[in-house]
Amino acid sequence: MRILVTNDDGIHAPGLDALVRALSEIGEVMVVAPATEMSAVGHAITLSDPLRVTKFFKNGHLFGYAVNGTPADCVKLAYWALLKEAPKPDLLVSGINLGTNTGINTIYSGTVSAATEGAILGIPSFAISLASYTHPVFEPAARFALKMARTLLKRGLPPGIFLNINVPPIPEHEIAGVCITRQGMASYREEFQKRKDPHLRDYYWLTGEKKEIETDERVDDRAILQKKISITPVHYDLTYYPILQELESWTEDLQ
Amino acid sequence: MRILVTNDDGIHAPGLDALVRALSEIGEVMVVAPATEMSAVGHAITLSDPLRVTKFFKNGHLFGYAVNGTPADCVKLAYWALLKEAPKPDLLVSGINLGTNTGINTIYSGTVSAATEGAILGIPSFAISLASYTHPVFEPAARFALKMARTLLKRGLPPGIFLNINVPPIPEHEIAGVCITRQGMASYREEFQKRKDPHLRDYYWLTGEKKEIETDERVDDRAILQKKISITPVHYDLTYYPILQELESWTEDLQ
Repeated sequence: MRILVTNDDGIHAPGLDALVRALSEIGEVMVVAPATEMSAVGHAITLSDPLRVTKFFKNGHLFGYAVNGTPADCVKLAYWALLKEAPKPDLLVSGINLGTNTGINTIYSGTVSAATEGAILGIPSFAISLASYTHPVFEPAARFALKMARTLLKRGLPPGIFLNINVPPIPEHEIAGVCITRQGMASYREEFQKRKDPHLRDYYWLTGEKKEIETDERVDDRAILQKKISITPVHYDLTYYPILQELESWTEDLQ
Repeated sequence: MRILVTNDDGIHAPGLDALVRALSEIGEVMVVAPATEMSAVGHAITLSDPLRVTKFFKNGHLFGYAVNGTPADCVKLAYWALLKEAPKPDLLVSGINLGTNTGINTIYSGTVSAATEGAILGIPSFAISLASYTHPVFEPAARFALKMARTLLKRGLPPGIFLNINVPPIPEHEIAGVCITRQGMASYREEFQKRKDPHLRDYYWLTGEKKEIETDERVDDRAILQKKISITPVHYDLTYYPILQELESWTEDLQ
């Protein structure tokens, strides 16, 4: 079995390393990951620049392929170019990201976008993130990724659907199980710090904090707070169907 | 009335200029747009670099603010910093993009991501694109943007919903009306051209073509082919609800 693994923290990231070690138990892992950190690149693809691929070695062994592009670029390039004549991956896993990918932040996530690409290509896919920016305890998440890989391959998902998984940053024995969740919709109160550079020119730096998380227990962020692993099924059809009918009545104004 | 206008082709783009001229009929237009082209940046935000804002003049008059960031950065920065103490925008319009933003390409679109930010901030918002990369006939789309602005302000949309509009690149009298659509789901057959640079190193360049468009007349790309303006309602909750119940049964495998 061939497992394609990527991330958005870059090919050097310890979260990727932990994931590769765990998944190697069940198949041949192929790593194609950004050469450098690509956080918050969202669902970006590189059209106006050429992509380069470099073999990346660890301890004298080939660990994977580093690409000067985004996570989505990595998946496309692996599928259409590096594996052009080869059997396609049976599974795609993106992560383990250092930092939460829940709520409306999901739409900015490079980690999630790689799993989206997997789903578009018809590969069973999931994204997995550690819900902390400061506590890199990847082992529980890596072991959960292995469980999830087995379960996903056994159970399957409908076409175009993949999973977005977030793991609380605590020791394994403290994790209070899993929770099937929906994406939270709490918005952020953002702030730009206005500073002056050494040449006295202004610049802005984005900061921000989430407004109150919804109280619904089935929301991704709420599950994390309750020390559970959140699992949200995701698709890439952005159409908001409930309003299609009502919009028909707008057309008279738009002639 | 204050209208915030942005795009992803950059503040110099003629599509932006046409849009600003049209919308000036109904309100005070504030332009905050990327300093350079940001196509296919998707829903990216800039976290690891400072943002700079430069006043951009045309014919000796202030035209808008150029930001060294993405379309999403522009909207956030306008709302939280440039308009910090000022009344917030009554309307946000992103475009007019040179190039189609339909089907699964919607998820890579910087133009659409700016309207997403508007919707997150509670501003009535739409994205508008010209369905051509080579025929910059922006006037029909600009006049339609004005009609849509009036209609949207009159009719309103539920929280978190915005519109993604694509206009066929033909003279106004040939446009066969509007069509309320859903996002197409046709995937692409992609290809990476492998080339050698002048130093004989390999590089890859993404190309690709859409597989057959769905025959459903209510699909965005199909509407364009029929010379209609497509209007797709979009939201940013990526949860795939129909499978939540079934996923509950997976939890026994994941203990």
